[in-house]
Amino acid sequence: MDLFGGIEAGGTKFVCVAGSGPDDIRMEERFPTTSPVETIGKMVAFFQHAEKKLGKKFVSFGVASFGPVDLDTSSPTFGFITSTPKPGWKNTDLIGPLRKTFGVPVGFDTDVNGAAIGEGMWGAGKGLKHFIYITIGTGIGGGAVVDGKPLHGLIHPEMGHMLLPHDWDRDPFEGHCPYHGDCFEGMASGPALKARWGVSADGLPANHSAWDLEADYIASALQNLIAVLSPQRLILGGGVMQQEQLFPLIRGKLLEKMNNYFQSPAILNRMAEYVVPPGLGNQAGMLGALAMARNEIEK
Amino acid sequence: MDLFGGIEAGGTKFVCVAGSGPDDIRMEERFPTTSPVETIGKMVAFFQHAEKKLGKKFVSFGVASFGPVDLDTSSPTFGFITSTPKPGWKNTDLIGPLRKTFGVPVGFDTDVNGAAIGEGMWGAGKGLKHFIYITIGTGIGGGAVVDGKPLHGLIHPEMGHMLLPHDWDRDPFEGHCPYHGDCFEGMASGPALKARWGVSADGLPANHSAWDLEADYIASALQNLIAVLSPQRLILGGGVMQQEQLFPLIRGKLLEKMNNYFQSPAILNRMAEYVVPPGLGNQAGMLGALAMARNEIEK
Repeated sequence: MDLFGGIEAGGTKFVCVAGSGPDDIRMEERFPTTSPVETIGKMVAFFQHAEKKLGKKFVSFGVASFGPVDLDTSSPTFGFITSTPKPGWKNTDLIGPLRKTFGVPVGFDTDVNGAAIGEGMWGAGKGLKHFIYITIGTGIGGGAVVDGKPLHGLIHPEMGHMLLPHDWDRDPFEGHCPYHGDCFEGMASGPALKARWGVSADGLPANHSAWDLEADYIASALQNLIAVLSPQRLILGGGVMQQEQLFPLIRGKLLEKMNNYFQSPAILNRMAEYVVPPGLGNQAGMLGALAMARNEIEK
Repeated sequence: MDLFGGIEAGGTKFVCVAGSGPDDIRMEERFPTTSPVETIGKMVAFFQHAEKKLGKKFVSFGVASFGPVDLDTSSPTFGFITSTPKPGWKNTDLIGPLRKTFGVPVGFDTDVNGAAIGEGMWGAGKGLKHFIYITIGTGIGGGAVVDGKPLHGLIHPEMGHMLLPHDWDRDPFEGHCPYHGDCFEGMASGPALKARWGVSADGLPANHSAWDLEADYIASALQNLIAVLSPQRLILGGGVMQQEQLFPLIRGKLLEKMNNYFQSPAILNRMAEYVVPPGLGNQAGMLGALAMARNEIEK
């Protein structure tokens, strides 16, 4: 079996993995995201060590990164983190060091597109041509697969920054997004929940009214995603979605909001298979990076 | 020059055109959408007459239709209008009669995807891989081109049914969409304007406060489209967008709402080229159908 390298480059931690798929993870390491020099140094060192220890060369890598990133393969800064507010990380080349050290192809995409690609190869998106992976955690982001390929566009989607209905009488919280206040991320991310209720998501009981409100915002966002992308499935991951009571609430509210407008049996009759947790659980990001490495060889 | 046939199949009228492009329209006919038998009969008769009069056979057709439609080429009802509320039109085969009569390929898509394809071939989307055409008129709909191809997905997008922020204090209008009340179409379509102000769009002076509010809803919708699809350009057509004073209002509000979050020069510095009217004016739909016919031969 060929050896692939995957890197889930997050704003808080990096996860590096060597192997070929969910059933063949041969080595794995996680470390906090500190300075670019230190973090990228650790990443390269891990894979050098892995080659020695496993007695095998890597055939390709996949990097699924926090953003914003440059995904334009014809750009001189392809593979860079661009205008991030994260101190020190602006204009950081994530793929150059891997290419230089190992001399093999390196795939590059957003963290959420990576997770979507992983779900498509091994998880809840398997066999589907059009689906969306959404993470609701520290931030909110979404990766879309359209016609079997991750959607990029001009830059890349930033689905957490959709503007949604906000009933100020019911919920006077002004929102937590520094750019847009009460956008999707501003109302429904983990930090937004904490800012509104004074407790983090983990600390709110499953029957707390917070979840009904949370499900409401998520359902509005999902209706918008259906209106714009018409996906075959919506996969919801991330820390906040560990609260499993959210799934039935979201499905119910989504059906109510859509009010039979989107006429497809997949939506009207099979909602439990339409809005689902990730098939790869919380490994979607890390395995997605590995899936991206595999795609580099197969394309 | 080869002869192509285009049909813009609208809920109010059908436009049939014979030619090869914007500078080569050889015959054209419009008639109201009555019963399927009568309307489709007129469509077929027009093209039979055109073949005789022009002394040339059609090499292909393109049908850009009102919906919902079945776009799944592997489905037995591909080319059908499906669950429309329009009396008599449920489960109507639009392409069968053309195929049977003329024995040539028939392309099929939604009216808005058709317009997007036309704009891509000859209009404001020329040379772009990712853009969106939105029509704001009797209804609101959008067609997206992603990686050079019209986006379909599970059914097809219904961008008019996004849910948007609604400031009830500023605007107590409950919305005009029979399904969702105050969705995008419910707040910003032509009939919504008329229901709110008691006058149709044409009758509202250019400095009426209606336009500021209208631009506000449209700008929210555009931010959502940017968040989800990251297009290289947004093309706004349809009857309401004939009100040219809307363009600067929308651009200003969109920049304000986005608040520098989407970091691309195309968005930050070139807004006048980012949110634009159709290059084909109000012929985008009809020429789009012709462009679809051409695509049938070139694919």
